Amino acid sequence: MPNVIVQQLPKSPEATRDLVRRITEAFVDACQTPAEAVHVWIEEFPADRYAAGGKLLSDK
Amino acid sequence: MPNVIVQQLPKSPEATRDLVRRITEAFVDACQTPAEAVHVWIEEFPADRYAAGGKLLSDK
Amino acid sequence: MPNVIVQQLPKSPEATRDLVRRITEAFVDACQTPAEAVHVWIEEFPADRYAAGGKLLSDK
Amino acid sequence: MPNVIVQQLPKSPEATRDLVRRITEAFVDACQTPAEAVHVWIEEFPADRYAAGGKLLSDK
Amino acid sequence: MPNVIVQQLPKSPEATRDLVRRITEAFVDACQTPAEAVHVWIEEFPADRYAAGGKLLSDK
Amino acid sequence: MPNVIVQQLPKSPEATRDLVRRITEAFVDACQTPAEAVHVWIEEFPADRYAAGGKLLSDK
Repeated sequence: MPNVIVQQLPKSPEATRDLVRRITEAFVDACQTPAEAVHVWIEEFPADRYAAGGKLLSDK
Repeated sequence: MPNVIVQQLPKSPEATRDLVRRITEAFVDACQTPAEAVHVWIEEFPADRYAAGGKLLSDK
Repeated sequence: MPNVIVQQLPKSPEATRDLVRRITEAFVDACQTPAEAVHVWIEEFPADRYAAGGKLLSDK
Repeated sequence: MPNVIVQQLPKSPEATRDLVRRITEAFVDACQTPAEAVHVWIEEFPADRYAAGGKLLSDK
Repeated sequence: MPNVIVQQLPKSPEATRDLVRRITEAFVDACQTPAEAVHVWIEEFPADRYAAGGKLLSDK
Repeated sequence: MPNVIVQQLPKSPEATRDLVRRITEAFVDACQTPAEAVHVWIEEFPADRYAAGGKLLSDK
């Protein structure tokens, strides 16, 4: 604990690597959480599985 | 906001497209939410990743 | 199944009642799901537990 | 209802099958829930989508 | 890891205590996961935040 | 989009405010996401709703 679930469009391996490092630091800096206690799960959604405004992103 | 997470078995692209449109309208009609504020994420689970009654659907 | 998780700000009981009815109909109409198979969970977040643009809604 | 979401690394079909059976029994034994009311969704994350300590598991 | 999210109606402290113990054992027995690696989060929903068949449980 | 769900024990308003700001910056810096597109939902769990090692935190 804490547990972080990220829902997003696919990202590059480099961006994902950088993102989980920075999210973890956010907990260390804001809450003094030990880094090793922070768990991050990245859920990537393709453009035909995410909609805003009633439209799939793949249809825009 | 709002954010909607749907967990379901795989559906056709047409059904998914229709579903996200109708879910979005549900928020517009019930809560007067602007359509573009409604975010929908579709999580599809194959039959060997979903269980009811203690049995994977793929084993039924 | 399917399972629907809604994350939103607090709504009135009437709006919530209407919303779950309409979301359920969305599955019936788009996917021919039997209404009784649709499960909806409403997670209400107060304004100091939701942020966009890096700011809690309660601070805006 | 109840609804159970499991986030984990990939497991074998046999372990997954055994896991959903045992989780369902946990609800039957602890809460007297009827087995058929227990829904379990297995979300498998590859090693480049899960991080602890700020590092993707695939980078360790 | 693994991470388990339970969505359910309110339960007694005794049932909750028993449930998290048994869910954890399910992972130990099915997947040889060390018990201390299993994280369980209990989300309790009151009857006016859960619907099946298009109706809030509190309206049935 | 993206959408971030944080599951954690209760934190102070100051720590929560700082946390959502830093998480949002993580996306801006790692993925060049515009800050206003980042949505963060904070789910706080009391010590009798979170377990590790098969034991509720409130029982430790």
